[in-house]
Amino acid sequence: MSLRIAIVGGSGYTGVELLRILKGHPGVTVTCVTSRKLAGTKVASVFPSLHGYGDLLFSDPDPERIVNENDFVFTAVPHQAAMGIVPGFLEHGLKVVDLSADFRLRDARIYETWYQPHSHPELLNQAVYGLPELYRSEIISARLVANPGCYPTSALLPLVPLLKESVIGWEGIVIDSKSGASGAGRSASMATIFCEVNEAFKAYKVGEHRHTPEIEQELSRVSGKDVRISFTPHLVPMTRGILTTIYARLTRKISTADALSVLSRYYNGATFVRVMGEGVFPNVSFVRGGNCCDIAARVDERTGRIVLVSAIDNLIKGASGQAVQNMNLMVGFDEGQGLETAAIFP
Amino acid sequence: MSLRIAIVGGSGYTGVELLRILKGHPGVTVTCVTSRKLAGTKVASVFPSLHGYGDLLFSDPDPERIVNENDFVFTAVPHQAAMGIVPGFLEHGLKVVDLSADFRLRDARIYETWYQPHSHPELLNQAVYGLPELYRSEIISARLVANPGCYPTSALLPLVPLLKESVIGWEGIVIDSKSGASGAGRSASMATIFCEVNEAFKAYKVGEHRHTPEIEQELSRVSGKDVRISFTPHLVPMTRGILTTIYARLTRKISTADALSVLSRYYNGATFVRVMGEGVFPNVSFVRGGNCCDIAARVDERTGRIVLVSAIDNLIKGASGQAVQNMNLMVGFDEGQGLETAAIFP
Amino acid sequence: MSLRIAIVGGSGYTGVELLRILKGHPGVTVTCVTSRKLAGTKVASVFPSLHGYGDLLFSDPDPERIVNENDFVFTAVPHQAAMGIVPGFLEHGLKVVDLSADFRLRDARIYETWYQPHSHPELLNQAVYGLPELYRSEIISARLVANPGCYPTSALLPLVPLLKESVIGWEGIVIDSKSGASGAGRSASMATIFCEVNEAFKAYKVGEHRHTPEIEQELSRVSGKDVRISFTPHLVPMTRGILTTIYARLTRKISTADALSVLSRYYNGATFVRVMGEGVFPNVSFVRGGNCCDIAARVDERTGRIVLVSAIDNLIKGASGQAVQNMNLMVGFDEGQGLETAAIFP
Amino acid sequence: MSLRIAIVGGSGYTGVELLRILKGHPGVTVTCVTSRKLAGTKVASVFPSLHGYGDLLFSDPDPERIVNENDFVFTAVPHQAAMGIVPGFLEHGLKVVDLSADFRLRDARIYETWYQPHSHPELLNQAVYGLPELYRSEIISARLVANPGCYPTSALLPLVPLLKESVIGWEGIVIDSKSGASGAGRSASMATIFCEVNEAFKAYKVGEHRHTPEIEQELSRVSGKDVRISFTPHLVPMTRGILTTIYARLTRKISTADALSVLSRYYNGATFVRVMGEGVFPNVSFVRGGNCCDIAARVDERTGRIVLVSAIDNLIKGASGQAVQNMNLMVGFDEGQGLETAAIFP
Repeated sequence: MSLRIAIVGGSGYTGVELLRILKGHPGVTVTCVTSRKLAGTKVASVFPSLHGYGDLLFSDPDPERIVNENDFVFTAVPHQAAMGIVPGFLEHGLKVVDLSADFRLRDARIYETWYQPHSHPELLNQAVYGLPELYRSEIISARLVANPGCYPTSALLPLVPLLKESVIGWEGIVIDSKSGASGAGRSASMATIFCEVNEAFKAYKVGEHRHTPEIEQELSRVSGKDVRISFTPHLVPMTRGILTTIYARLTRKISTADALSVLSRYYNGATFVRVMGEGVFPNVSFVRGGNCCDIAARVDERTGRIVLVSAIDNLIKGASGQAVQNMNLMVGFDEGQGLETAAIFP
Repeated sequence: MSLRIAIVGGSGYTGVELLRILKGHPGVTVTCVTSRKLAGTKVASVFPSLHGYGDLLFSDPDPERIVNENDFVFTAVPHQAAMGIVPGFLEHGLKVVDLSADFRLRDARIYETWYQPHSHPELLNQAVYGLPELYRSEIISARLVANPGCYPTSALLPLVPLLKESVIGWEGIVIDSKSGASGAGRSASMATIFCEVNEAFKAYKVGEHRHTPEIEQELSRVSGKDVRISFTPHLVPMTRGILTTIYARLTRKISTADALSVLSRYYNGATFVRVMGEGVFPNVSFVRGGNCCDIAARVDERTGRIVLVSAIDNLIKGASGQAVQNMNLMVGFDEGQGLETAAIFP
Repeated sequence: MSLRIAIVGGSGYTGVELLRILKGHPGVTVTCVTSRKLAGTKVASVFPSLHGYGDLLFSDPDPERIVNENDFVFTAVPHQAAMGIVPGFLEHGLKVVDLSADFRLRDARIYETWYQPHSHPELLNQAVYGLPELYRSEIISARLVANPGCYPTSALLPLVPLLKESVIGWEGIVIDSKSGASGAGRSASMATIFCEVNEAFKAYKVGEHRHTPEIEQELSRVSGKDVRISFTPHLVPMTRGILTTIYARLTRKISTADALSVLSRYYNGATFVRVMGEGVFPNVSFVRGGNCCDIAARVDERTGRIVLVSAIDNLIKGASGQAVQNMNLMVGFDEGQGLETAAIFP
Repeated sequence: MSLRIAIVGGSGYTGVELLRILKGHPGVTVTCVTSRKLAGTKVASVFPSLHGYGDLLFSDPDPERIVNENDFVFTAVPHQAAMGIVPGFLEHGLKVVDLSADFRLRDARIYETWYQPHSHPELLNQAVYGLPELYRSEIISARLVANPGCYPTSALLPLVPLLKESVIGWEGIVIDSKSGASGAGRSASMATIFCEVNEAFKAYKVGEHRHTPEIEQELSRVSGKDVRISFTPHLVPMTRGILTTIYARLTRKISTADALSVLSRYYNGATFVRVMGEGVFPNVSFVRGGNCCDIAARVDERTGRIVLVSAIDNLIKGASGQAVQNMNLMVGFDEGQGLETAAIFP
């Protein structure tokens, strides 16, 4: 029997990507996709690429109907909106993957420093941080999974194993990330019109991006220290993809090959993390359309530091693909179901 | 039992796209992919997006081994090279889809006017022109299918039904096509480096593109006249996609809605042709990554002409996807197998 | 003494481009640039590329001050807004180049069919259509110049000489234009955000674009016939540039070389029109940042038609550069002053 | 009287950009531009944007004629080729700006570690490092100026003042640079064809880029220490522009405003360096086509570090514009002559 799924907030790029991925997932049926703005219009007429959904309409969110007719909910609404609706779904026994930031931070005070007051701090400890390569067992038994941010996904996957093994120090980590424009979402805004993004490149929210505490939380857990990172996101004139370049201090002499081995061992068996061979570096063009995170490393003896580079498709491993990976674990499907499609190159 | 497949000439963009599509096809196994240039290197190391192929290597073409170990061959080598190898595969009982131009034109003299001498003109009548929406039954029983050019696919699908029904006249047809840069293939060339294509737009081979006789051949067959078209291709600064705009003279008063009905009736049941609603026009961004051809029409009473617009992914419906669609028909698989993936938007 | 200039509506892309060009013009001083939205902010802080303007602020439009402190006005506001303010400037003796559509059509009924009622039809006959290569002498003595649309500029320059010399017929002309996204202006809109335009290509306003009557008006004047064209604009994923491909019926046998000669003779002495050599076709990348229109032609004996291709920078020859060229003529400057900068390649 | 100029190696992007800039320079005449590959063809037919050069041809390099007919030479050939021809020009009394790496490093051993043997190490001390904002007086009296690399220009301008004033420490500096594809030059290469760069993003030459020792040399001179930096270049899918993000340790508490003041004071009077206001960050789109370097800074108290961001047009301030700026100083022109054009936005 097919798992019945509702997507709340389905008209943004992550919603559309969820719809696309779930269309190819043999175990599920999307029964409902909400959008206040597009309510009453056909999914397939707004997004002809989704014509496989036939006559499915965007609908106004109707929580009662959602809980009655579904087993599982993806909430893809903005932060603050998510915390208002997720508790209701949980109460009625639905499992939830929330793609917003509302349940990612365990400490409500930190959340409130970077966002705004939290109406349901009691849920923060129930929520599992949905990075399957780090928290697989917790996710399997979770009812609420907080799907990680795109930048944190790209930063944590290369850093965590090396920090855990104390190959790198916890101080002085620099994370320089570059994202395609789909990360800014699908809404009218002068800053994101084509002529402002094309042939342009900029850093933004320097020193103040909200993914900072999320990365720090996870690095602190691993290291047992109060980690403070330098994190700078940049906007790349491309649609999809995040490439993150990380600089960390080595705690001891280690070769590039050995550093890569630490990573490979840690991700042994992980379908969606690929550790590159020595001298090979990732390119977002080789993960676009797929759920993989590619990771490379190079030790620089001249400076005693290691440079890590990771690449993901921000809408897939950085959002909707990871959300489906989490769902698969939560309901007992094969972890990779619906996510096996090869990336599209070129 | 899985159909064993060889891809001859697998390192270009159409080869890579064949590999990607066939990876997701449940009925086939790619046993061999040739590339003189890359022989001995792993497919997955040149194209990390294809890591699903594990240890499969590019190999030097070895016709004997290919015929011994395979049931089906895709030839994705340049024209003139194709005619040298296809006959051997056919003799040994393999079925072939050839992606080059070598078997598309039935009249050897026309081939030789636009290309060069043909070494196997006797095969031209055996070869079936592989546009499944037009020649489905012939393809089903074919041993050699000539996979259509990308531009002809985009031009013929909208034109043929209207010409067949005499809605439009056969004289004075103008076909103005715009293609992404992947149509130029994957090889070092100064004309196609990023800085020459990006923020640029040009017409090329004005009045002399080799897809002209291919389009004329098919339109002439349908109309019974010696059709001469004006065809101009253009290069768009994007990777994938062809949009074709066609201008034709109406033979009688007809509404846009009625013209669309003619198209819809003709493609009733065709999985991969979508006729848009009145007032809706295609965008290559809604077919990228999928095998569909989207078609729109608008009657312009002011001029007595109809404007047709079509969109395809040039590497899929315009090449490798159509090739797999042809293979499916030739070997008895479901026509759409391996091609159901929704297009990727954005 | 410097010509004092006001730009009304200076915060869009054509306004910014006017500011950039006029900064390098030795004979003028921009005293005032209006923008309701940005009033009170520094030009150089919104557009750091214009830091040469120092402390100049965007201001609310103040007609009285504009007429008191200026000799010349560029109106770069939307159509309908322009007709409300231009008459006042003229009454007070200022010369005006209007970049909107409000004064381009001589026949108020045609204007009203394609736009909305016209409040000042009496000005339509005073206004000169500002294509200097066609109307140089009229522009020299004009007080109000209607700066042509970007598409009409690219279509008329290649067509007019051939129509005038009866090389081509007036019936059945097809104009297929492709424009970069800056033509859509600088305002928040979901249809123009980066991810909707990038890696996308579409036709729009098929059979109903408002530049149609403008092109028809000029072709009808030249030919003395009631010309009806097929015109389709397309959106290219690039910032600047228009490439227009035109198909016209030849009235007699003529070689490509002779057709090019007709064009060359007509534009002999014209600084900003370049007729390419036989076999050479324009690319928008060679006119970007400059005021040139490049034109090529090829006769296709197979079909009895000629294909014309033109390229302009839509913001320069298609808007602000042409506006400055018109100003130069109207006030007695050298026609090319401020416009000599070579195009930027790559 | 006009300064007579030869450009040796004029067919690459920096050569073309030199030609473009010098076309608008009132004090010079380009008499000769060499290219073995294009010898005998018109500059204007290869690069229609340079049609202002009329009948000037690319020629084979003829050193004797160059010294007889010119006062000044720009050498824009690859490293190693430059060291072979520059000494001859100097001997005959010509002044030279060399755009290659051959004369940038003062220590021949370091040059030989990162490049290959140096045939004229005796010239390394005569050559002046051509960053005018740092070495203006030395450049004024120089006969040979080594034009800086594009990345070093973008890194040194923000770093030098803060290091000189000991606001930042010399250890642990991280320089993360992102460049448009024109930095890779104009030659056929599969790695730079459109489909490999578009919608792609990668780091390259991680830990081994040859601009590393150049940056270290200059930072070491300023600090008196043996500076070792982490430097990673990245390839951005755009044509022009470099954005560099720098992370450095603060030596003491300082506000962002005060750090910006240090930068502003240092560049007081410098035409081509703009220090942004607090909270404003550069974008390459605001320097494209101009010779400016925009610089921003933000102190991050949480980590005790400062983040610096700079933007340049790699072909102008990062190459040909800076070369002209150096020439202006060397021959007594106004420093900004020919370089005043506002950047092109959008």
